Amino acid sequence: MAEAHPPLDVPSRSIPVPSHLSPQAQAVLGTIRLPRTERPPLDDHEAWRRSAREGDETTLELIGPRAAAVPCRVEQREVAGVPAFVVDPDGIAPDDRRVFLDIHGGGLTSGGGDGCRAMAVLATLRNGVRTWSPDYRMPPDHPYPAALDDCVAVYRDLLERHRPGEITVGGVSAGGNLAAALVLRARDEGLPLPAAVVLGTPELDLTESGDSFHTNLGVDNILVGSLMPANLLYAAGHDLAHPYLSPLFGDFSRGFPPTILTAGTRDLFLSNAVRMHRALRAAGVEAELHLIEGAPHGGFFGAPEDLEVELEVRRFIDRHWD
Amino acid sequence: MAEAHPPLDVPSRSIPVPSHLSPQAQAVLGTIRLPRTERPPLDDHEAWRRSAREGDETTLELIGPRAAAVPCRVEQREVAGVPAFVVDPDGIAPDDRRVFLDIHGGGLTSGGGDGCRAMAVLATLRNGVRTWSPDYRMPPDHPYPAALDDCVAVYRDLLERHRPGEITVGGVSAGGNLAAALVLRARDEGLPLPAAVVLGTPELDLTESGDSFHTNLGVDNILVGSLMPANLLYAAGHDLAHPYLSPLFGDFSRGFPPTILTAGTRDLFLSNAVRMHRALRAAGVEAELHLIEGAPHGGFFGAPEDLEVELEVRRFIDRHWD
Repeated sequence: MAEAHPPLDVPSRSIPVPSHLSPQAQAVLGTIRLPRTERPPLDDHEAWRRSAREGDETTLELIGPRAAAVPCRVEQREVAGVPAFVVDPDGIAPDDRRVFLDIHGGGLTSGGGDGCRAMAVLATLRNGVRTWSPDYRMPPDHPYPAALDDCVAVYRDLLERHRPGEITVGGVSAGGNLAAALVLRARDEGLPLPAAVVLGTPELDLTESGDSFHTNLGVDNILVGSLMPANLLYAAGHDLAHPYLSPLFGDFSRGFPPTILTAGTRDLFLSNAVRMHRALRAAGVEAELHLIEGAPHGGFFGAPEDLEVELEVRRFIDRHWD
Repeated sequence: MAEAHPPLDVPSRSIPVPSHLSPQAQAVLGTIRLPRTERPPLDDHEAWRRSAREGDETTLELIGPRAAAVPCRVEQREVAGVPAFVVDPDGIAPDDRRVFLDIHGGGLTSGGGDGCRAMAVLATLRNGVRTWSPDYRMPPDHPYPAALDDCVAVYRDLLERHRPGEITVGGVSAGGNLAAALVLRARDEGLPLPAAVVLGTPELDLTESGDSFHTNLGVDNILVGSLMPANLLYAAGHDLAHPYLSPLFGDFSRGFPPTILTAGTRDLFLSNAVRMHRALRAAGVEAELHLIEGAPHGGFFGAPEDLEVELEVRRFIDRHWD
């Protein structure tokens, strides 16, 4: 056991907007000032549902217009009993069998429905291939393991139609949690693994033990506080540190696909990405880390800085189709 | 031009020592509390010399014992008029022609002599190959471009004895500045480039424009303030933003070797590493970024977290010998 050390006292500061960033990125850092919202008590399910609806409205305001402009065809279908969106980019070749399985974000409590659809459309734009996106069940009505069950069910269905090398899996934020957890569970259940994994500013540690949960608290202007209430609602009494809830704590020496990780330097989840990168590399897994200078959680809403890293993701995926 | 945005006000905080780190890393974060030292006025050369001597004593206290335990043979010789250390690891094969050209750190104002020797010995231990390390001239007596001239002279000498593929170049902190600048200048002078470059928590931007110069101010407990006085002393009136002084602003589309970058998430130089990674990748250069969770500038003085990343560096170098 290490002895307990005193914390580091950091005085109050005024942190300027870096002038070397793009005007769009500067505007994100300079204008968004979110209040620390109180999360509902765990047993007030109606309040959680209301909070999810409000979150969804904000998400759609932010990404809806960009998604609406993407030339693609969206189909809503049921896959293995799970509602899902299947998005084909316009002009896709009829014999193109590549599929990106996109797990939507939203703090494990929101982001379904139209938000799921919009995120799937944007994933299609980024990756240039067909996207499948499960509109998975969520708390308060369906806590863990419902969401993960749904994601695994859709992955199983994909495996019946595709070779594993034709499938990549990814997600942003809470979607990164479920994407990594689905791969760990698929592996434990003896399923073949996808060609590559994409984890964007991923919520890989529901215990929030990483350093950036403190160093970037108040510095990240998008994630302005702990997500622990949502994590507890999701876990519903299950161990937050179990690898299916916090994939960071998985055993990657037993196999994990090539993985690309992204985050921002102001990101509350910076440590999640950095620690997962190290954990994968320590297990000998091919893994890349790409950070966006100055970015809060989720990046700069499509600024050039984001696009550079999205291009890295696409290059990474394209290198691993098999 | 982007409009000016207001800064972000971050209240004072107590940042705990992450309990998931090794005991040695926790001790670094929990016990080192350096005062913000006043740098001397630029024209008080005697005070700068005294400050460099004090810095050297601290460096030797910190790394001297580790360096003394490394089984190796150190030779002091003059290379192209520059005093240099040549370090052979014990047991090196007589026909092993690989050389790591190590540029020492020390804020561009200190780290010469016994410090240079100790850093070269530790580089030999990390990389497992012969190390050459120029004991380059420094301000106040020899400002820019003396140090860079010395590094380039030694590189030119190496090129007369070795194929470029047998040479890798690297440095930590200010050594990362000079290592990258030497490669840019070698390229501009039409010299062949080394097989790979290693930039450890590199001081690539003497203008200090990166976001982490603010976000990690007071969070990094090793670099506790701006290095601008030393940068100005070094530049001696030259443009701080010139790529030979701030290699971050170089044009990498005209060629740069494969490069591995490291830093800590609490590092004042985090943005230097992140931005250089992006700049190299944007120019199509092979580049990897590896971060140490929770680490201040320079890492954890040999904790397991450091060794993991040092192993990445060695793997990277070993992949590129040619």
